Amino acid sequence: MPTGEIEIKVKTAELLNSCKKLPFEIKDFVKKTEALRLQYRYLDLRSFQMQYNLRLRSQMVMKMREYLCNLHGFVDIETPTLFKRTPGGAKEFVIPSREPGKFYCLPQSPQQFKQLLMVGGLDRYFQVARCYRDEGSRPDRQPEFTQIDIEMSFVDQTGIRSLIEGLLQYSWPIDKDPVVVPFPSLTFAEALASYGTDKPDTRFGMKIIDISDLFRNTEVGFLQDALSKPQGAVKAIRVSEGTKYLKRKDIDSIRKFAADHFNQEVLPVFPEANRNWNSPVAQSILEEQRSGLIRLMEIREDDVVLLTAGEHKKACSALGKLRLECADLLEARGLVLRDPALFSFLWVVDFPLFLPKEENPGELESAHHPFTAPHPSDLQLLYTEPEKVRSQHYDLVLNGSEIGGGSIRIHDAELQRYVLATLLKEDVNLLSHLLQALDFGAPPHGGIALGLDRLICLVTGAPSIRDVIAFPKSFRGHDLMSNAPDSLPPEELKPYHIQVSWPADSEAEKSSLNQPSHPES
Amino acid sequence: MPTGEIEIKVKTAELLNSCKKLPFEIKDFVKKTEALRLQYRYLDLRSFQMQYNLRLRSQMVMKMREYLCNLHGFVDIETPTLFKRTPGGAKEFVIPSREPGKFYCLPQSPQQFKQLLMVGGLDRYFQVARCYRDEGSRPDRQPEFTQIDIEMSFVDQTGIRSLIEGLLQYSWPIDKDPVVVPFPSLTFAEALASYGTDKPDTRFGMKIIDISDLFRNTEVGFLQDALSKPQGAVKAIRVSEGTKYLKRKDIDSIRKFAADHFNQEVLPVFPEANRNWNSPVAQSILEEQRSGLIRLMEIREDDVVLLTAGEHKKACSALGKLRLECADLLEARGLVLRDPALFSFLWVVDFPLFLPKEENPGELESAHHPFTAPHPSDLQLLYTEPEKVRSQHYDLVLNGSEIGGGSIRIHDAELQRYVLATLLKEDVNLLSHLLQALDFGAPPHGGIALGLDRLICLVTGAPSIRDVIAFPKSFRGHDLMSNAPDSLPPEELKPYHIQVSWPADSEAEKSSLNQPSHPES
Repeated sequence: MPTGEIEIKVKTAELLNSCKKLPFEIKDFVKKTEALRLQYRYLDLRSFQMQYNLRLRSQMVMKMREYLCNLHGFVDIETPTLFKRTPGGAKEFVIPSREPGKFYCLPQSPQQFKQLLMVGGLDRYFQVARCYRDEGSRPDRQPEFTQIDIEMSFVDQTGIRSLIEGLLQYSWPIDKDPVVVPFPSLTFAEALASYGTDKPDTRFGMKIIDISDLFRNTEVGFLQDALSKPQGAVKAIRVSEGTKYLKRKDIDSIRKFAADHFNQEVLPVFPEANRNWNSPVAQSILEEQRSGLIRLMEIREDDVVLLTAGEHKKACSALGKLRLECADLLEARGLVLRDPALFSFLWVVDFPLFLPKEENPGELESAHHPFTAPHPSDLQLLYTEPEKVRSQHYDLVLNGSEIGGGSIRIHDAELQRYVLATLLKEDVNLLSHLLQALDFGAPPHGGIALGLDRLICLVTGAPSIRDVIAFPKSFRGHDLMSNAPDSLPPEELKPYHIQVSWPADSEAEKSSLNQPSHPES
Repeated sequence: MPTGEIEIKVKTAELLNSCKKLPFEIKDFVKKTEALRLQYRYLDLRSFQMQYNLRLRSQMVMKMREYLCNLHGFVDIETPTLFKRTPGGAKEFVIPSREPGKFYCLPQSPQQFKQLLMVGGLDRYFQVARCYRDEGSRPDRQPEFTQIDIEMSFVDQTGIRSLIEGLLQYSWPIDKDPVVVPFPSLTFAEALASYGTDKPDTRFGMKIIDISDLFRNTEVGFLQDALSKPQGAVKAIRVSEGTKYLKRKDIDSIRKFAADHFNQEVLPVFPEANRNWNSPVAQSILEEQRSGLIRLMEIREDDVVLLTAGEHKKACSALGKLRLECADLLEARGLVLRDPALFSFLWVVDFPLFLPKEENPGELESAHHPFTAPHPSDLQLLYTEPEKVRSQHYDLVLNGSEIGGGSIRIHDAELQRYVLATLLKEDVNLLSHLLQALDFGAPPHGGIALGLDRLICLVTGAPSIRDVIAFPKSFRGHDLMSNAPDSLPPEELKPYHIQVSWPADSEAEKSSLNQPSHPES
C-alpha cells in the first residue's frame, strides 16, 4: 500500500478536521462530468491521475531547468507581462491603467523582450513564461498558458535543434522509453506532400503517394480534369489490410467526409477489380494502371487505396485528414497503429516566410511573425518575389501535435524595417524600440518556444491540456470553481476611467448576469 | 581579461552587424539618469552591474528550486493569474472579458490557490509566482513583482521557519559569507519596544531603553505628563561616541524631525550636565537621575542619549526612526555602523491578528489577511476580546527590510466563517469556494512568501529593486522603453464592451496623450 506495510496500534487520536459528504468519490473509475470536476477542482486534484500529471510536470520542468541553467549556462530571466499592444496583436487582453485612455496589454509571448535581451548581452536566455491569448469565441482555449521560452545569440538552426533534442532527452521521464536523438526532419513541402499537413503524425505510415504519372493518359474524367490544371495531381494513400478492418459504410463515410470538408472526390481502389464496390469510376481504371498502382504503392491483397485528384496542396490536405480518419477507424476496430508508448518527434523546416492575406490575397502577412529571418539562399528573392522566400522558422512536432516553434531572427535593422514597412505595411512606430535596438550592434540570434501544457499532455497521455493544469479555465474561458470572470460594481471601474458599454441589442446578455454561478455546470 | 589571455591573429573577418553611436557609454563609471537607462534598457543591460545582478538572481532562484524540489519534495505548480476580485482587493488590476460587464482580476498573490492545493492533497507546493498590485498614485511601485511562494500541509511555525532558513542557507551566493542559522526571533511587542518598528535593522545596536522608572519623581513637565497617562513611558537611545560625530546642528535637525513627523519632543542628554547645549529642560534633570541613566544605559564619556516621553508605541516609533536617522548621520561622518558584508536575518512573530480600522477604529480589519490562524493560546479571546488575539503570522526581516511573511492558516471552515462574517463583516459569498473547500477535510497548513525582488536587491547591494529586474517599470509605472501603458483605438476596446470615461474636469489630461513618448525622461 502506498501508505506502508506496517500496522499501527493507535492509543490516542486527534481529529484535525472533519469532512462533509463529498460531491463525488475520489476514485479514478468514478466517472464525473468535467464541469463538476472543475467546480470542485480542489477535490479532483486528489485523484491519482491529477497528482501524477502535476507532479510529473513539476519534475520535468525541473530537469529542463537543470539542463538549461546548470549544464548550458542559460540565465532565467523574468520579462514583464504588463506590456503594450504589438502590431497585429488583436488577441491580446487589455488592462486599463489609472491614466485615462492608457492601457497595458498581456503579451502573447516574450518575443520582443527576449530579442532585446540578446541586444543586452544576456546571450543565453530562458524562462518558463506565462503567456496570454484572448481567443474570443473559439472554444477549448486556455486564455493563459505556459511556454518554455529560449533565445540564444550566435546560433544557427542546427544549434537550437540539438539544444532542444538534448533538453527533451535530459528531462524525459525515466518511466518512459528514452528519447532518441537527433530527431528526423522534413521540409514544409515534404511534410505537405507526404502527410498533407505541417504537423505529421509519424508514428505510422500510410503516407501520401503521388501517382499522377500513372494517369497521364487516363480516360476518367475527374482525373483528366485535375491533371490538366496547374499544380494538378493524383494522390493516394494505402490503407494496409483495409478490407479486413474497414466496412463498406466506413469507406462511404470517409468519402462523404472528403466531399463535405474538402469538396474532394475520393475513390477507393482495391487490388482486385471486382471488389470495387459500386464504384463505376474505379472500375474504369485500366488494368495497366491498376498493376502500376500495385507496384508503385506496394499494395497487398487486403489493402485499400484511397485515391483523389486535384490541386496538389488541396489533394494532399484532404488525404492527410483522411489518413488520420482511417487511423481512428482502424484503431476503433482493434488495430494498434499508434503505439501509446511511442513518442515520435519531428522537425519541420523551410516554411514559407510569408503567406497571402486571407482577406486580401494581393497582400502578404508573416507565416509566423515578422521577426523571422529569411532563408539565406532566398535572400535576393525578398526584393523580387517575396512570396517565394522560405524562412528560417522551424517547428517541433510530436505525435502529430505542434509542441514548439522558433526561428533565427532578423538582426539587421534595415532588413527588419524593409520587412515591416515595405512588405508587411505595418506601422513601424509601434516597434521603434526594437528597430532602434537592432541598430546598436545586435548579435545574430534565434530561439524557440515549447508549449509546455501540450507537451506534458502528450507525455502523460492526458485527454486534454486541462488535465495537466492545476486550475484551468473551462471550454468557454471560465473558472468554474471561483466563478471568474465576474461582475464588478461600477465604482471599482472608476479609478481606471472605463465604463461598460452594454450591447444595445441584448437585454438578454445583461440579465444573464443574474444567472446562477456556474453556467457551464 | 575576461575574454582570455591569448592573442589572435586574424586572417579574415566578417562583420555580423554594425553599431550606431550609443546614447551613452557602457561603462559603470559613466553616470546617466535612470530615465535614460530605462529608455535604452537593452544597452543598460550590457553593464557589468546589471549582468551581475540578473545572473546572480537566476542562480540563486535555481538553487532555491533545487532545495525545494529536489531535496524537499516540493511540487512546482503554476496557478492562474486571470482570477476574480477578492474581498478587499482594491489594489487588483481588472481585465475586461468578452462577456459584457464581466472582468478577470490579476491576483496580488496565489493565496487562495495555494490553500486550495493543500485541500487537493498537493501537500508541498511552491511557485516562483508573478504577482500584481496596482498601487495607483504611490510612487516607486512595481505593478508586477515576484515572490517565492510556499505552502505546506501538517506544518507548524517552527517547520516553516527552519525550511526557510535552510532555503536561504542553501541558495546563498558562495561569494558572500555563509548564512548562519537558526535566525534569531523577536515578538512583535519586543521588536516595537527595542527598535520601534516591526522590521528592525539588527546590524547595529542603539536599542530603545525604557527609562521610565528613573523619572517617576521627575519635576520636568513633559516627562511628568507622559508618565501620568495610560501606556505613558520615558524612552531613550544611546548614540555611542555621539559627541565625536554629531554636530550641534545634527542634534537640532534630529529634534526637528521628531517634532515634525511624530509630534514628539526629544531631549539630548550628555553624561556631563554642562554639555547640555541650550537645553534648559535637560539641565533640570537631577544629578541622581543622570547617574541612574549613566548606569542603566552604560553611557560613556562621548555618548549622547536621545530621550523622549509619551505613549509607549508612539515614543518607540519615533525613537526607532531617529535610530535610523542617527545611523545615517554617523555613517555620513565616516563611522561604519552597518557592515555591507553583514546580512542580519530576524524573525518577527506574535503579531496582533486584527487592527482597528483606520477610518473606523470601532471595527476590526486583518493585520495581514483573513486566512491567518489565531495563536493557539489566544483562541478563546477571539470570542471575547478579538482585538487582543495574537496571530500565527511571522515576518522575515533582513537588514531592516521585510523580505517575507507568512502564517499558519485557518483550516477549520467554521472558524474561518466566524472570522470573515462576524469579526471582519466581509461578504462570504465571494469566498464560498474556499470555505466549501475547508469543509472537505482540509489539512492543517501554513506557508510563506518571500519577496524575490527585494531579497535580490539586498543580496546584490543594488540601490533599487529596478536594478534587479530586467525590464522594470519606472517610478510612475511606465515602461520607458516601449512606452507602456499606451493609448488604444476605440475599436480595440469594442470586443471587451468597455469605453473610456474621460475625466470631465481635465481636458489637460486628455491632451497629455499627445505628449512625446517618454514623459519621465
